Amino acid sequence: MTQQTTGAHLRAHDEESGSTDVLATLEHFRTLVAPALRETVRRLPPEISSTVEYTLGWRDADGTPRSGGSGKGLRPALAMLTAQAVGAAPESAVAGALAVELVHTFSLVHDDIIDGDEQRRHRDAVWKAYGIGTAVLVGDALLALALDALSRAAADKTGPAAMKALSNALVELVNGQAQDVSFELRPWTGPQAVTVAEYTAMAGRKTGSLLGCATGLGALLGGAGPGTVKDLTGMGRHLGLAFQAVDDLLGIWGDPSVTGKPVHSDLRQRKKTLPIVAVLAEDTPAARRLAELLEAAPVTPDGPEADAANAEENLRRAANLIDEAGGRALAADSAQRHLCRAQHLIHRTAVDGSAAATLAALGEFAVHRTH
Amino acid sequence: MTQQTTGAHLRAHDEESGSTDVLATLEHFRTLVAPALRETVRRLPPEISSTVEYTLGWRDADGTPRSGGSGKGLRPALAMLTAQAVGAAPESAVAGALAVELVHTFSLVHDDIIDGDEQRRHRDAVWKAYGIGTAVLVGDALLALALDALSRAAADKTGPAAMKALSNALVELVNGQAQDVSFELRPWTGPQAVTVAEYTAMAGRKTGSLLGCATGLGALLGGAGPGTVKDLTGMGRHLGLAFQAVDDLLGIWGDPSVTGKPVHSDLRQRKKTLPIVAVLAEDTPAARRLAELLEAAPVTPDGPEADAANAEENLRRAANLIDEAGGRALAADSAQRHLCRAQHLIHRTAVDGSAAATLAALGEFAVHRTH
Repeated sequence: MTQQTTGAHLRAHDEESGSTDVLATLEHFRTLVAPALRETVRRLPPEISSTVEYTLGWRDADGTPRSGGSGKGLRPALAMLTAQAVGAAPESAVAGALAVELVHTFSLVHDDIIDGDEQRRHRDAVWKAYGIGTAVLVGDALLALALDALSRAAADKTGPAAMKALSNALVELVNGQAQDVSFELRPWTGPQAVTVAEYTAMAGRKTGSLLGCATGLGALLGGAGPGTVKDLTGMGRHLGLAFQAVDDLLGIWGDPSVTGKPVHSDLRQRKKTLPIVAVLAEDTPAARRLAELLEAAPVTPDGPEADAANAEENLRRAANLIDEAGGRALAADSAQRHLCRAQHLIHRTAVDGSAAATLAALGEFAVHRTH
Repeated sequence: MTQQTTGAHLRAHDEESGSTDVLATLEHFRTLVAPALRETVRRLPPEISSTVEYTLGWRDADGTPRSGGSGKGLRPALAMLTAQAVGAAPESAVAGALAVELVHTFSLVHDDIIDGDEQRRHRDAVWKAYGIGTAVLVGDALLALALDALSRAAADKTGPAAMKALSNALVELVNGQAQDVSFELRPWTGPQAVTVAEYTAMAGRKTGSLLGCATGLGALLGGAGPGTVKDLTGMGRHLGLAFQAVDDLLGIWGDPSVTGKPVHSDLRQRKKTLPIVAVLAEDTPAARRLAELLEAAPVTPDGPEADAANAEENLRRAANLIDEAGGRALAADSAQRHLCRAQHLIHRTAVDGSAAATLAALGEFAVHRTH
């Protein structure tokens, strides 16, 4: 939870007070949405519900119940806090909160198949634990439940706009994921290399869309007018871009014991993330040395020991080069800039100052997180 | 297109006149929905749209454009004809037609991954042509487009009900698929065997739900009242059950040169379909002999030649046993019974007799098809 982990250029964060409050806030909203989530999962037959319960962190693969549950629950909290910020009860946005959390979980399950990621939240990815076919189906089930939850709840005049917001976010999300995957096939340098603008557009789709949908749905279900909904959708999108920039920092410099991923995880997977793309975009000696390292043979964990040690050393050198060439600072600045813009939008728009302050703190927390 | 192919107990069908008309009807509605479908696919970035175009049959894997296009287009035709049957213009249901066709295509793409089916419509399945990750993403994209198409078009007072109908169908579809997959793990006989009632419930979810959604959306978007929407949703569900029973017949006795699947395809894949489940439910000598055959070692195409020949002979004997024990007749009767109930509902409900007659003919066609 310190600036050293995510980037030396993020401003210091008062961990003692701030993050404890935010953790309590997240816990509060998780509790608020839990009954609706359990009710929704009950719509699935036993053939699939046990796997969905594993996915949501309610049980282990052997059936043992777990407390703790799923992820941080950032998106549901954002939806309900935004409803509160526009003067409504947080409960008015429960269906939206539920829908975005289910869509988020759907996307993680399918992304892990697509990316071949074996671990998620310190446990086996669903495809690793249950097989690819089941994981495809679990993702589909989560998405179906998301739509079902929102369409049941949003039968009044906000219904069509709410469903449109979710559908739009979903199209963007899938488009963003498709672009992210296609980036892997492109060269590190030259005219075909991924530009910072392309990267930012992809991140807006892949991460910004659903966070924007969370805050947009919160405003909409909270009864806000179109202008406010638009502003608060924008707020969520900026939070999403900040969030993604931090993810990219953690993907290179995150602490494996906290993130649950291998050291230099994104470099290992040859992902074209913001810090790298930004460095390679400049025709500098550092960029050329970095490209050379990245183009070297990828790490094969079962290769000869000497090769593996050499590959690890290359990863470490690449991470240092990106840092020295300013990629780490640029991503950290980007996170901070988007956070500021999100906070500006919330303070300008909110009618409930206390909810606005909590939203702003949630944004700080998301940008200063370590996993 | 003859009774011999799908089951000796289906009544004769006037192929010369009826099926030519129906093919022209399907072609007409495919043409009607085509511009909206092309417009919708344009919402995808180039990274994924070419694969989606392959999936829809618009191009080959090497990029060559194809005419012909995707499947029969039964679901869009049902949606638009039902709108016409309640007295509206068929065009009023284009968004519904588009949505159900896209959901149908989504489910085929993901089902082929889940079932490991390598061929679809005489071409490589999407996962076989482009890899599993891409196929997961293509399915997700199709589903996102389906929701997007319906949510954009259905922003008036029918919007919430339309989205609810689609979401409901989607939950049912996924539940049905999960149950179908789980049936594979259950024994052929004994207290854990799949019952006819369980099979029918699964088929209603897996196939009935989306056909019911097609006709229900047609009625809804055509401006029908709740009672009519309910009746015509029921009509589609019965068509779906008839359709699935015919699929099950074709899965055992279909002509490989027409279906594009191997001979005895469902037996080969050890699928628990209606003709088999019905025979095994009775404690008869034929059922016991069938169970013995089915429990024999599965076919391994790369096994010794003698074993493979023996396995082929076992499949042939199993198919004959199911026929002799009445499984083929039962499935054919089931198809005919559900078709009759669907036709009863349409004639009772429709205000446009000509559209009703075409719908009834479409039902006949679907039940007497050979692929």
